[in-house]
Amino acid sequence: MPRHAFVNGQYLPHHDAAVHIEDRGFQFADGVYEVISCIHGTLADERGHLDRLERSLKELQIAMPVTRKTLQFIMRELLRRNRLKNAAVYIQVTRGAAKRDFKFPKDAAPTLVLTTWPFNFDNGNIGKGVKAITVEDQRWARRDIKTVGLLPQSLAKQKAAVKGAFEAWMLDGKGFVTEGSSSNAFIVKGKTLRTRPATNDILKGVTRTAIAHICAEHGLKFVEKPFKPRDALKADEAFNTSATSLVTPIVSLDGKPIGNGKPGPITTALYEHYRAYVEDLKRKQYPWKA
Amino acid sequence: MPRHAFVNGQYLPHHDAAVHIEDRGFQFADGVYEVISCIHGTLADERGHLDRLERSLKELQIAMPVTRKTLQFIMRELLRRNRLKNAAVYIQVTRGAAKRDFKFPKDAAPTLVLTTWPFNFDNGNIGKGVKAITVEDQRWARRDIKTVGLLPQSLAKQKAAVKGAFEAWMLDGKGFVTEGSSSNAFIVKGKTLRTRPATNDILKGVTRTAIAHICAEHGLKFVEKPFKPRDALKADEAFNTSATSLVTPIVSLDGKPIGNGKPGPITTALYEHYRAYVEDLKRKQYPWKA
Repeated sequence: MPRHAFVNGQYLPHHDAAVHIEDRGFQFADGVYEVISCIHGTLADERGHLDRLERSLKELQIAMPVTRKTLQFIMRELLRRNRLKNAAVYIQVTRGAAKRDFKFPKDAAPTLVLTTWPFNFDNGNIGKGVKAITVEDQRWARRDIKTVGLLPQSLAKQKAAVKGAFEAWMLDGKGFVTEGSSSNAFIVKGKTLRTRPATNDILKGVTRTAIAHICAEHGLKFVEKPFKPRDALKADEAFNTSATSLVTPIVSLDGKPIGNGKPGPITTALYEHYRAYVEDLKRKQYPWKA
Repeated sequence: MPRHAFVNGQYLPHHDAAVHIEDRGFQFADGVYEVISCIHGTLADERGHLDRLERSLKELQIAMPVTRKTLQFIMRELLRRNRLKNAAVYIQVTRGAAKRDFKFPKDAAPTLVLTTWPFNFDNGNIGKGVKAITVEDQRWARRDIKTVGLLPQSLAKQKAAVKGAFEAWMLDGKGFVTEGSSSNAFIVKGKTLRTRPATNDILKGVTRTAIAHICAEHGLKFVEKPFKPRDALKADEAFNTSATSLVTPIVSLDGKPIGNGKPGPITTALYEHYRAYVEDLKRKQYPWKA
């Protein structure tokens, strides 16, 4: 059975899935996206991701192409067709195809694309940790909107890859970490987590929000305050959060060890709690399975 | 005869011209473009545009998908198939289609897309002038690369359109004009033109460069120095340059008149000289037609 994708109302073989060359996603980066992890059959933090998708679209005055209920059905149907239980689900909505013009088109119907791919969430990163580097944050002013204008993040991630690192932490003009190229950045000192406040300077991660809830439940302090690389080097632990990497320990920054250079106990506990939280979501979604 | 486009080696009916949903142009804005005007059958400043295309690609480490000579042939063949003499030629190159990953793919072939559309260069803007507004410049740090990450520019142009203006001049954090959403911005005082230096803060316009040459030839001073909206309001004239709008007088900014609120004599002369320069290019390309 071939891999399937979803494009504007149709399930298609992935190979044939295409959009018009005048789609504004292709010509103007005029679109937004979400990635949702399906972990052991549960769409992790589905509501948070769909809330954020709707917010991103609203900020750009793009209409939701289908109802939330329909979108939820399409995600599940695509996972079913692709026989996936552990996967990433990618949703992209653009302003649609229209004669090229910087101004918004009057009559374009938004484009909806979904893809899925298998994902191994038990990849061992939690046990070993990963390396990060720092790069200049070159992005635009509205990083709170999850647009497909991802070239600065791609360039940052590529720089990390060239240096053998997993992630690039981006620095603002004053040398403070904004976030990772595809993750939020945290440091831990004692029982206190520190991460940048969710202003227009960063994307407010859905996993980041879950971590805040877990901290509140388990007596950890969640402080929203910018930090610099030198704060990270003086911290006990550091980690990233994202939809697919979940909670990933950062054990070195620009080649210097963080803490003892190994995943720390709080990061590891947060990872376990997040996994349990997703399992709990599963029980809530399918109570007869609990 | 249907309208044609060119996609990766094929001339296709425009309606059927598509790219894969995992093209990095669609998912990451990981691509660059150029728009070249074909005026009375001449590709205006063709060399300047192709030089800049190659520079943009080099900055992003994307390979030119075809030789320059081949690209020049495709442009002409597409214009011929579409029976156009006055047109915009749009060229887009992306890093190609690949499994979604922020890092550069190892094996992707760059995507090449060309479209053309009829364009009326004698649209009367030079006689009447147009209005501009100011907006915050929300773009990323590498505006010198002509990427398809155009959402901030699209939002700016849309704001202008909503206010009945033709262009939005974007302001940096200190209130200086960077450039228009799809043009370079100039003010004129006496015989001196003033425009922002071509650093990473702006796209170095090909028409802007032509204007610098025309100034040098005709005794006008071309000063590269940032200016503020208040400088524009105290200037004698203001105008924009771009590949398709050529030289366009700006007669008001945020509702306040510039100069006497009409296209000024220097702007008008620069427009005429630019048109003549393009005609001159034509004579150089086809000396037997001169």
